[in-house]
Amino acid sequence: MNQDYIQPNNWSIIEEGFDAERVKSSESIFSIGNGAMGQRANFEEQYSSETFQGSYIAGVYYPDKTRVGWWKNGYPEYFAKVLNAPNWIGINVSINGEALDLANCKVIKNFRRELNMKEGWLSRSFEATLHNFIEVKVETKRFLSLDMDEVGAIQYHVTPLNNEAKIVFAPYLDAGITNEDSNWDDKFWNTLSVKFEGEQAFIESHTMKTKFHICTFMQSQVSLNGKKLNQEKTINDTVDSIEFQYQNQVNKGDTITLTKFGGYTTDRNHDKDELKSIAKENLTKASALGFNALLENQKEAWAKIWEMADIAIEGDVKAQQGIRFNIFQLNQTYLGKDARLNIGPKGFTGEKYGGSTYWDTEAYCIPFYMATKDQDVARKLLTYRYNHLEKAIENAKKLGFKNGAALYPMVTMNGEECHNEWEITFEEIHRNGAIAFAIYNYHRFTGDYSYIPEKGLEVLIGIARFWQQRANFSTAQNKYVILGVTGPNEYENNVNNNWYTNYLAKWCIAYALENIEWVKENYDSDYTRIMNKTKLSTTEMEQWKKVADTMYFPYSEKHHVYLQQDGFLDKELITVVDLDKSQRPINQKWSWDKILRSPYIKQADTLQGFYFFEDHFTTEELKRHFDFYEPFTVHESSLSPCVHSIQAAKLDRMDQAYSFYLRTSRLDLDDYNKEVEEGLHITSMAGTWMSIVEGFGGMRVKNDMLSFEPKIPTQWKAYSFKVNFRNQILKMNVAQGSATFELSGTDELKILVNGKKVTVAPNNLMTV
Amino acid sequence: MNQDYIQPNNWSIIEEGFDAERVKSSESIFSIGNGAMGQRANFEEQYSSETFQGSYIAGVYYPDKTRVGWWKNGYPEYFAKVLNAPNWIGINVSINGEALDLANCKVIKNFRRELNMKEGWLSRSFEATLHNFIEVKVETKRFLSLDMDEVGAIQYHVTPLNNEAKIVFAPYLDAGITNEDSNWDDKFWNTLSVKFEGEQAFIESHTMKTKFHICTFMQSQVSLNGKKLNQEKTINDTVDSIEFQYQNQVNKGDTITLTKFGGYTTDRNHDKDELKSIAKENLTKASALGFNALLENQKEAWAKIWEMADIAIEGDVKAQQGIRFNIFQLNQTYLGKDARLNIGPKGFTGEKYGGSTYWDTEAYCIPFYMATKDQDVARKLLTYRYNHLEKAIENAKKLGFKNGAALYPMVTMNGEECHNEWEITFEEIHRNGAIAFAIYNYHRFTGDYSYIPEKGLEVLIGIARFWQQRANFSTAQNKYVILGVTGPNEYENNVNNNWYTNYLAKWCIAYALENIEWVKENYDSDYTRIMNKTKLSTTEMEQWKKVADTMYFPYSEKHHVYLQQDGFLDKELITVVDLDKSQRPINQKWSWDKILRSPYIKQADTLQGFYFFEDHFTTEELKRHFDFYEPFTVHESSLSPCVHSIQAAKLDRMDQAYSFYLRTSRLDLDDYNKEVEEGLHITSMAGTWMSIVEGFGGMRVKNDMLSFEPKIPTQWKAYSFKVNFRNQILKMNVAQGSATFELSGTDELKILVNGKKVTVAPNNLMTV
Repeated sequence: MNQDYIQPNNWSIIEEGFDAERVKSSESIFSIGNGAMGQRANFEEQYSSETFQGSYIAGVYYPDKTRVGWWKNGYPEYFAKVLNAPNWIGINVSINGEALDLANCKVIKNFRRELNMKEGWLSRSFEATLHNFIEVKVETKRFLSLDMDEVGAIQYHVTPLNNEAKIVFAPYLDAGITNEDSNWDDKFWNTLSVKFEGEQAFIESHTMKTKFHICTFMQSQVSLNGKKLNQEKTINDTVDSIEFQYQNQVNKGDTITLTKFGGYTTDRNHDKDELKSIAKENLTKASALGFNALLENQKEAWAKIWEMADIAIEGDVKAQQGIRFNIFQLNQTYLGKDARLNIGPKGFTGEKYGGSTYWDTEAYCIPFYMATKDQDVARKLLTYRYNHLEKAIENAKKLGFKNGAALYPMVTMNGEECHNEWEITFEEIHRNGAIAFAIYNYHRFTGDYSYIPEKGLEVLIGIARFWQQRANFSTAQNKYVILGVTGPNEYENNVNNNWYTNYLAKWCIAYALENIEWVKENYDSDYTRIMNKTKLSTTEMEQWKKVADTMYFPYSEKHHVYLQQDGFLDKELITVVDLDKSQRPINQKWSWDKILRSPYIKQADTLQGFYFFEDHFTTEELKRHFDFYEPFTVHESSLSPCVHSIQAAKLDRMDQAYSFYLRTSRLDLDDYNKEVEEGLHITSMAGTWMSIVEGFGGMRVKNDMLSFEPKIPTQWKAYSFKVNFRNQILKMNVAQGSATFELSGTDELKILVNGKKVTVAPNNLMTV
Repeated sequence: MNQDYIQPNNWSIIEEGFDAERVKSSESIFSIGNGAMGQRANFEEQYSSETFQGSYIAGVYYPDKTRVGWWKNGYPEYFAKVLNAPNWIGINVSINGEALDLANCKVIKNFRRELNMKEGWLSRSFEATLHNFIEVKVETKRFLSLDMDEVGAIQYHVTPLNNEAKIVFAPYLDAGITNEDSNWDDKFWNTLSVKFEGEQAFIESHTMKTKFHICTFMQSQVSLNGKKLNQEKTINDTVDSIEFQYQNQVNKGDTITLTKFGGYTTDRNHDKDELKSIAKENLTKASALGFNALLENQKEAWAKIWEMADIAIEGDVKAQQGIRFNIFQLNQTYLGKDARLNIGPKGFTGEKYGGSTYWDTEAYCIPFYMATKDQDVARKLLTYRYNHLEKAIENAKKLGFKNGAALYPMVTMNGEECHNEWEITFEEIHRNGAIAFAIYNYHRFTGDYSYIPEKGLEVLIGIARFWQQRANFSTAQNKYVILGVTGPNEYENNVNNNWYTNYLAKWCIAYALENIEWVKENYDSDYTRIMNKTKLSTTEMEQWKKVADTMYFPYSEKHHVYLQQDGFLDKELITVVDLDKSQRPINQKWSWDKILRSPYIKQADTLQGFYFFEDHFTTEELKRHFDFYEPFTVHESSLSPCVHSIQAAKLDRMDQAYSFYLRTSRLDLDDYNKEVEEGLHITSMAGTWMSIVEGFGGMRVKNDMLSFEPKIPTQWKAYSFKVNFRNQILKMNVAQGSATFELSGTDELKILVNGKKVTVAPNNLMTV
């Protein structure tokens, strides 16, 4: 780990003491979001030192012109960027004419920040002495409402401690913002109007090129010692900002408070012409409720989420804090309400990685959302890809594929590819396999087959077509090979016959064929519609089958393992423990070519295949492959430790599983990768959930039943989690030496525990 | 070919008729240069339509900030750009107040452009009717002096044809220029002063960052019907430009002429403070001589070059024009006067490809310069790399090599790498081998061993160290392998065991060891100096030897050929003739990944090895490899046809050899690659020379003797060339059925003709 200033606490993330060096790190960690918008934990008042300002609206992006060194045919022209949105949280504060600015105080005491995950709010308090010798106490609380997801609320209290003082609150809206990371210094926003009415203000603006229209809004109210003041304000507006100024002489010990509601309405959800009137409705409703009532609603809404999604760990506060932080951030990012949205790798916490959707969603996030929400949420995530199928076909066409072959983008916001390293964009094609696997996984877990005839099968056909065309027959091997790919281990580029990719390709084709057959037999009208649409012929399916049946897999007779790719054994096979520590992380210490030539693995690659297709291999085979590959794995991807934790647990290596668990669950809190300033690793957080539920809990679906092989790290007293399995809620509590099951509802549930079938009766603790 | 408007002519490049579509193409083709500076054939007068303005000073570059999509450790931060220099050729012309502008005339007749290669000048003439109905005849001539290589001269005649007219000449200097292709829109030049004295003007400026100081200068003189006028002028100057205006009422049929001398002095050659005074001396000397005398000197200087370098072809004007154009452009680019300079792939004809030095110099250009100049010129080119050895060691160190291992840059201006595709910069390491081969080639041809103890051996040691460290032992192969490389065929990236690279690596080590031994025995003090400097130990040399002796080479037992790289036979081996024509060129029609997966070869790769090390293989082996690889070769690199032409000739396939010859010699004149607008392919022009001398003439050095196997395409009556072999000038004239040798000087020369030793007596034709 690289930092340890976060206080261990079961339900909150707490920072104590002010350190300017930690500001950007904390801005990421204390981020708040409600699925529709989110923001870094920037201070409301002016902060004149190093900060990374960020406020993001779900689905609002900008197609920045792609910047590349050397153009390659097939690169996307635009790169969809996560877009910094207008600032509505700003409240400048001046005290006897001096700006309150934590970068510029004489003394700062008792600085404390808390992200209360149980209730979904962020608070901050401190005492500051200004250069004018006035000492004030400041307390703020802020949240983004889950109930009214276009609205956020802030309460900002100032108490002069050593003297009376003239205190000016200046809440503002600012649409003159930029992105940290713009390729061509383009302007991204156009301001259309700046307006105010009474205590409300509105800025209408739209993104350039994409023309997303939004209205940013605020309303403010000043109170003294809890009593509302009706007072005059000064209004300052510019072409892209507006500020209200409220001036008050405040006695020593009295508390002056600014309550601010704000947020965005967007034409993604409303008619463009109604953005301001709906903004006004939002403000009127929120202010009528008031800050406290809205906060109570917030607590209830979060309680409902936790009721289903919480994982409780006894006896290990840091592990507890880690998993809750992960579950909290996932829910802040995506709540499954909108099929146009997805789970960005940085959520609403930073700009890095353009686009919102990676294969992370299918490979890592879907299990979490399937088990902790209504199954409709996972179906929305699948539908997202179905809605992008045409664009995936276009994308493949650009690269020379034909006849409806689909290559899903590596990174996207709207279905178009927006990454531009050839070795990734053009070659990291295993993503297609994860998308097909998610369909299989969804059906396996939810039992809902209807998605496949309705939507999924078309996706499976486009993907199978791609694999068939992407493979070629090698007369030398007398098999089909897949040349020029990058596997999940991005520390290898343009390799031939990546085992994971070849295995997925074969499986995708077989799975598509199996479902075509099933739909043909059971969903006549869907079958006819799909065949008419895709013009799939028997000849084509025979070609698919030939490729799948004759796929080549690199294998080492000597080591009895599948090889990550052709030629892997030509490398200098020095394990990670024998690597000088000064050389780590290799992605910071080594040139790219040295990394590529090395045997070091960024994240599970062959083992990712063993994770997806566990049933296809014996535990002995898993052990052999784990023992062969893990020693070369540097885990420099956030997605690496979780899969290894699950497999270590399966192999009864609980110490190793626990250490991988800590690494995945506290990756950002403890900043393992020295980059938390840039934002959080949202998608890998779902992997943390998997490493408890699938790893320690051993949860699988077998023969249409939930199956568990409960284990527990020696460091823990107990842990528990719930899963929603086909609309039945089952809770498992694992203690040292026992596991207890508890089922809600009215129907019993047959499950497997350590391979033995047991029946759980509803509302009745069952211990095994 | 893609264009055929260039008139066939033995000694000139001629364009007739004005076509705006051809302007940028002709600007490249009619470029002029004198080794110290060069320029595209931009019009002197205003031209308001599509044009690519370019004027370049040898060795003056700009380190533009590297633009990459995704940074990789080890990338250079700066990219040395060929820099567009201030414009000194400009002469605006106004006629009765209307600007003369070929993009904006009523009628243009008899437009003719000639690049006279024999005499080294560029002319242009046309008759234009302006919108004000004045018809004028314009004739211009321009050259860059070989004698006074800081000076160029222009004569610009205007004759009103249908009426008298007020004609204003406005010769100017303009330092407010930009590059076509700037990464970050940085400004590259700072103007320091704009001055004039009498008819002379001077702009002193310096490049930003690199701080190259230059003085751009001009002097002008107006004459009427050949008689000098002493007249008033108007002077317009801005912060970075200066213009003189000469106004004259000219009678119908009278000719008014502006003579302009101009050019650059730079602090690469002079003290910074003397740039203006030396500019003044240049102008004074040139104008005292006058345009005509300077032009006579130019003709003499070019006659001297042609005397040695010309290749005459009888019976095939297009072939003749092609080879002369190639020889002419090579001599315009590099004359071997300055060891700090090198041969940029676009010479002085465009900006594309930053940096001036590629492996092209060693692999393609050195044979031409060795045979057509004093051997001192080739030695300068070798010394260039010796002078960059420290930077090559630094470069390797950045990538993780140690102990004095040297990796020369793929592209450079000053020894630093300035390319930033990882698959090239980090992996196209065979360049190191070409640099070692050039040392061998130089010694073989010139017999001058002294370069090796003095300089070359240190280079060889650095290179051998690199290869030993870059290879690794594969326990699977029980051999040393070289992983993750890009061969000369850049349509493969990050492959394992590129045969050419492995072969070069082995050879480099063996050659270094052989020379260490020789220097040890014969150059005692050099040996001691080098061993002290390099700290080379016996243990290290033993490690080298182990790598060289145990190098792995991919081989196909089935096809009896070395494989271009591991896994080549897994590709879909469809030959180029079976590829749909609509798919060509694949670098424009296919996505990068499709190219990489295909078997198609951009330029000689395995065959490049057979070219370098011809003696190591039988003709039968060459034939087998040629027949295996050429059918997959798309020749989309300018460097491809020449090597294939030489090998086809060796295999007695004269039709194929001839067709490759035409393609290499007229690549730019006929614009085979649809890109001549961007500039000429200078380095491949040396390959054209090789395809006649080594291909048709069969010239080699064997046992310290020149050896010939003369052949001649059926399309030709005869051809002849001269070579300077160890200070003896031998001319060979090949006709259908005979070859004649003629030797200058006083000593006889033993040569091999078709394997038979013959003695050529001086000044005595000998026919075989």
